[in-house]
Amino acid sequence: MNSFGRKFSFTTFGESHGKALGVVVDGVPAGLKIDEDFIQSELDKRKPGKSEFETARKEADKVEILSGVFEGVATGTPIAMVIYNTNQKSRDYSNIKDVFRPGHADFTYFHKYGIRDYRGGGRSSARETAARVAAGAIAKLLLREVGVEFMSGISQVHTIASQKLDFEYAKQSIIYALDPTQEEAQKGVILEAKNRHDSVGGVATVVIKNAPIGLGEPLYYKLDGVLAEAMMGINAVKAVEIGDGIASTTLYGSQNNDQIREDGFESNHAGGILGGISNGEDIVLKVHFKPTPSIFQEQHTITKENENVDFSLKGRHDPCVAIRGSVVAESMAALVIADMLLLNMGSNIAGVKKYYE
Amino acid sequence: MNSFGRKFSFTTFGESHGKALGVVVDGVPAGLKIDEDFIQSELDKRKPGKSEFETARKEADKVEILSGVFEGVATGTPIAMVIYNTNQKSRDYSNIKDVFRPGHADFTYFHKYGIRDYRGGGRSSARETAARVAAGAIAKLLLREVGVEFMSGISQVHTIASQKLDFEYAKQSIIYALDPTQEEAQKGVILEAKNRHDSVGGVATVVIKNAPIGLGEPLYYKLDGVLAEAMMGINAVKAVEIGDGIASTTLYGSQNNDQIREDGFESNHAGGILGGISNGEDIVLKVHFKPTPSIFQEQHTITKENENVDFSLKGRHDPCVAIRGSVVAESMAALVIADMLLLNMGSNIAGVKKYYE
Amino acid sequence: MNSFGRKFSFTTFGESHGKALGVVVDGVPAGLKIDEDFIQSELDKRKPGKSEFETARKEADKVEILSGVFEGVATGTPIAMVIYNTNQKSRDYSNIKDVFRPGHADFTYFHKYGIRDYRGGGRSSARETAARVAAGAIAKLLLREVGVEFMSGISQVHTIASQKLDFEYAKQSIIYALDPTQEEAQKGVILEAKNRHDSVGGVATVVIKNAPIGLGEPLYYKLDGVLAEAMMGINAVKAVEIGDGIASTTLYGSQNNDQIREDGFESNHAGGILGGISNGEDIVLKVHFKPTPSIFQEQHTITKENENVDFSLKGRHDPCVAIRGSVVAESMAALVIADMLLLNMGSNIAGVKKYYE
Amino acid sequence: MNSFGRKFSFTTFGESHGKALGVVVDGVPAGLKIDEDFIQSELDKRKPGKSEFETARKEADKVEILSGVFEGVATGTPIAMVIYNTNQKSRDYSNIKDVFRPGHADFTYFHKYGIRDYRGGGRSSARETAARVAAGAIAKLLLREVGVEFMSGISQVHTIASQKLDFEYAKQSIIYALDPTQEEAQKGVILEAKNRHDSVGGVATVVIKNAPIGLGEPLYYKLDGVLAEAMMGINAVKAVEIGDGIASTTLYGSQNNDQIREDGFESNHAGGILGGISNGEDIVLKVHFKPTPSIFQEQHTITKENENVDFSLKGRHDPCVAIRGSVVAESMAALVIADMLLLNMGSNIAGVKKYYE
Repeated sequence: MNSFGRKFSFTTFGESHGKALGVVVDGVPAGLKIDEDFIQSELDKRKPGKSEFETARKEADKVEILSGVFEGVATGTPIAMVIYNTNQKSRDYSNIKDVFRPGHADFTYFHKYGIRDYRGGGRSSARETAARVAAGAIAKLLLREVGVEFMSGISQVHTIASQKLDFEYAKQSIIYALDPTQEEAQKGVILEAKNRHDSVGGVATVVIKNAPIGLGEPLYYKLDGVLAEAMMGINAVKAVEIGDGIASTTLYGSQNNDQIREDGFESNHAGGILGGISNGEDIVLKVHFKPTPSIFQEQHTITKENENVDFSLKGRHDPCVAIRGSVVAESMAALVIADMLLLNMGSNIAGVKKYYE
Repeated sequence: MNSFGRKFSFTTFGESHGKALGVVVDGVPAGLKIDEDFIQSELDKRKPGKSEFETARKEADKVEILSGVFEGVATGTPIAMVIYNTNQKSRDYSNIKDVFRPGHADFTYFHKYGIRDYRGGGRSSARETAARVAAGAIAKLLLREVGVEFMSGISQVHTIASQKLDFEYAKQSIIYALDPTQEEAQKGVILEAKNRHDSVGGVATVVIKNAPIGLGEPLYYKLDGVLAEAMMGINAVKAVEIGDGIASTTLYGSQNNDQIREDGFESNHAGGILGGISNGEDIVLKVHFKPTPSIFQEQHTITKENENVDFSLKGRHDPCVAIRGSVVAESMAALVIADMLLLNMGSNIAGVKKYYE
Repeated sequence: MNSFGRKFSFTTFGESHGKALGVVVDGVPAGLKIDEDFIQSELDKRKPGKSEFETARKEADKVEILSGVFEGVATGTPIAMVIYNTNQKSRDYSNIKDVFRPGHADFTYFHKYGIRDYRGGGRSSARETAARVAAGAIAKLLLREVGVEFMSGISQVHTIASQKLDFEYAKQSIIYALDPTQEEAQKGVILEAKNRHDSVGGVATVVIKNAPIGLGEPLYYKLDGVLAEAMMGINAVKAVEIGDGIASTTLYGSQNNDQIREDGFESNHAGGILGGISNGEDIVLKVHFKPTPSIFQEQHTITKENENVDFSLKGRHDPCVAIRGSVVAESMAALVIADMLLLNMGSNIAGVKKYYE
Repeated sequence: MNSFGRKFSFTTFGESHGKALGVVVDGVPAGLKIDEDFIQSELDKRKPGKSEFETARKEADKVEILSGVFEGVATGTPIAMVIYNTNQKSRDYSNIKDVFRPGHADFTYFHKYGIRDYRGGGRSSARETAARVAAGAIAKLLLREVGVEFMSGISQVHTIASQKLDFEYAKQSIIYALDPTQEEAQKGVILEAKNRHDSVGGVATVVIKNAPIGLGEPLYYKLDGVLAEAMMGINAVKAVEIGDGIASTTLYGSQNNDQIREDGFESNHAGGILGGISNGEDIVLKVHFKPTPSIFQEQHTITKENENVDFSLKGRHDPCVAIRGSVVAESMAALVIADMLLLNMGSNIAGVKKYYE
């Protein structure tokens, strides 16, 4: 239940304020060069504390590989990576120990498990996503070998939507903004909310380029289905769109169908997926994040003993989780594609015979 | 890859124009009464040919139970159900045999498998969803035992959105419309498109009532994640929202958080799920269907030999797949909840000891 | 829980005296030619009622393919096969309805499920293995494409062991005897027991030839581990050996190690598997079947109400289940190897790049 | 592929001479007290270097818990445990770097993966079993809560078999001997072989007491099938027996059937399992280990370039792997039973309703 993927799979562990986070990546093809600097650079993109648009919690997020790599190369055995928590020590959690923070998993974890690690949300903290990013980096290293590339950025903050998607620009932007003309307004709405001890939602767009045709396993491990699970499973995500997504609802079939010519599809309303299988076009995802539930205004809640209390959270939190969330979404996309890449081998007898001859 | 679920699971088989469709449902608790009339009544809701808003293909969709039920009761062994195709015989497929219908899985199946059953889309046909509905009926029978209920209907057709959600009304509506005041306009836009040999998209809303608190397995089999996969995996679905979904992006955290009182949550923006686990509130899903790709206007496409052709589809198709799709969405929701219900047993040691004492 | 395999997988359903048995085979590479006559011929080997050494129950075991095959070729979608029970009608089960037959699953099914289909053992009947043989036939068709072959036969009946293993001879033998010099004695001990209303145990030997080097997924889906599960999961099996098996316990390491030369291994004590991975040598399995628990002598047992009764079974049963069990063991071996064949694709980056270039 | 179990599951990582070994245990019911001293005590039983009957390699095998435990109690989230390798530094592997050790996985890993970590066998080393024992300790803590107990010991070394099974005595014996009257002879044959730079095989017997009736999921996750996989997957195991195992082959049905009385079964030839489900009697396993392949006599082998060489291994190895292997077998048995215990919840509707009422 803490694992994802069927052939290229990973298992994460760790809590926000425990000793360490980690991930075990299984199914990595042997012989793949494991570039540790690249893994660290991916983690650095998600790392907290880089600007005023993010939580002030400082974490080095330094990754250490414990297994599965020998002389810089994957051996085909599980690659375990650990990230020690360095900034979790001295907090006082007495104010959240016995109450359920609105919008958080406190209430549901307590009822499901009868116990919860209240320190910073424990396992339900978005801090766990560091482990996903480390695993995603390995997926990207694999996918590079067959030419697949990933891009992402923020296409909306609160009501301020990007008019264009400049993925190169987003790499430089401190909020990963895709549209330079909207970036300042987007920053403004974040800081305005933050100053009022509030938070805002946002949308990340992820694009996968050059995925081979044929990825996705119908009918119950479809590429779009699994991408949807991967995205919806990220903390704070409340909606997922593929291709034109919601907008396709308001089109006629004659507008929405992507007609085909010898040199390719004439449009890409489908977002690169037909019948749950990649069609060679760009795979396009929109991932909608709710506003951070951690706000510093007084809220109604109850205690573990079901007594009403008025409650004000303290601490350090992202005013807009979509920003760092976009890095996680891109990583999850890579993890899905890597799994589908390996699963697809063996789809037809010609491929099987070619492999074994 | 044709199975779904981990403990309450099902496997489907069959093609649109093969001998039969079917499903094997595994993990059904022994002793559950299996009401065959109820299963058939669920299939009848999805059955084609009931009105001018649906495909003219007539299928009895008569289900036959082959195993797993003895003297009207589940034995704990797999329940296999078969639906024979009765109206698949005489068609002439020569016009689609060698071309890829735009918006369909023809192109991707051919490239993945090197072969495709072109008769009515074969396995990729929405006809397969009859098997899901049969399985979903058993899930509902199980969930009734613990009081969980399901409701669904059409909340939007093309641009015409429901202003209110009357699930009782929807049961009577030939298009499962949730808002009687919008129903005629919604019917109108469907028939207008149909008459122009075109199609329209739509939105289904599904609500799950009385799910126990604690369903969902973090972090990679979350209730919202798996519901998203289940919905996105239905033919023609391009977006999935949970709770306020996309709208939550434009709220502030102070607006979006569901504050808590002794007698329950003060609102339900979250749609009944926090941290991937049910919180006891209504679970609310919005499922967005693209317009039916099968339209009867001339379109550009290519042949298997990659030659341009202009192509006009013939046949019988739903002008708005969302309508019958809403039945499938409700069934998939039931299948997910049934699985989560069984998986949740064993979450804490008190429950384990109570079970085995 | 009624499925086996991860990539080439199958799900069975059906009871001994229900409407039908069946199997859904998933993961079959598209383009594979599906020879229905071969499938039927495999089923005929396992079919009951062929001689006095088997149960007198007559079943045609006629297989019908419902899906997944188009124009004689696998399409990559699930292949469902059904075998209708034709000889299950008129029996009177009143004598076993309320008692637990010793050596059978009656007692455990009743306690686990609270209900049981008492007609001929229901799901726990060895009749279910017909579905495995049908699935195994498809596995064999796949494996033929890469040159893998299977052989099996009876190497021991009661205390009478084969001195040599002649797999060609076994094909002709009515008891699949591997040693023509022991066959008459083996037949004798079976008939002697049968005439006393008793039964005997036996041993099947299965050999897999020409399996590619590299099959098996360490450390928890090892080839030997999964073969052991596959064999031990067959009704009445109580022990499984690989290679020299139990005999290797009494050897010194210097005797048991298979030393290696340029042209191959100097011996095959290991039975073709090292570290859970095939090494290119013959894979050798010994599968030990207990005597049929269905005997016609009076035995002690209890009723559902836990009252002592003395009980005599009536009916038709194999006096030595190992004989027809050897066909099942060979089928299960094929199903494991097919799964491992597909899973192995993607083990190293060179193979992945070759596949996708 | 490095995970085992479906509900109570674990994933291991690490190589013999890498930084660390570890395991992530998932599905542990929240609220379970995690006794770290008990986990360490289990590891100490398997720890190398305790006597002349074991390898001279000294490892502290000190376990560190990284996650999933809060204030001494399981939280329901994954429990990650790490064991750092402390004695792996200074070795010179030049003599095995380019050759395949007979009886080891060197040959197969190299062919499957195209690369291998030659340091002490890498992942294929029995050192990985430390991770299984750590996980098994948690399984035992869970099972204690419902009264299940485990016992094990050595019932045969080379040809010297125990005449009785005294599990209390075995706890004290340096070779875990079950029969004090055979212990000296068993020690003698080990030392005799060791002095000749050779090795011997042996047999471990494991008994599971007080397992609830009803554990095991037919037909493809049977208790006996999964136990067989668990045992056969341990390094060096070549045969697995359940109950009377091989001996049952030579019995008549009238002898082998366990007849039943009001107060229980009259015998236990079946070894506590009927139809793949526990029947409440002792579950009895015999696990056959081949002689350690690491011997110090000259052997024939080949290099990676397929050239013949005569080769003498150096290093530190167990002369009889069955001894420490018995600890691993007991751990694996606990891991299987824990999984089956949780999976069984939900088998019948009465249990589901009781749980959720």
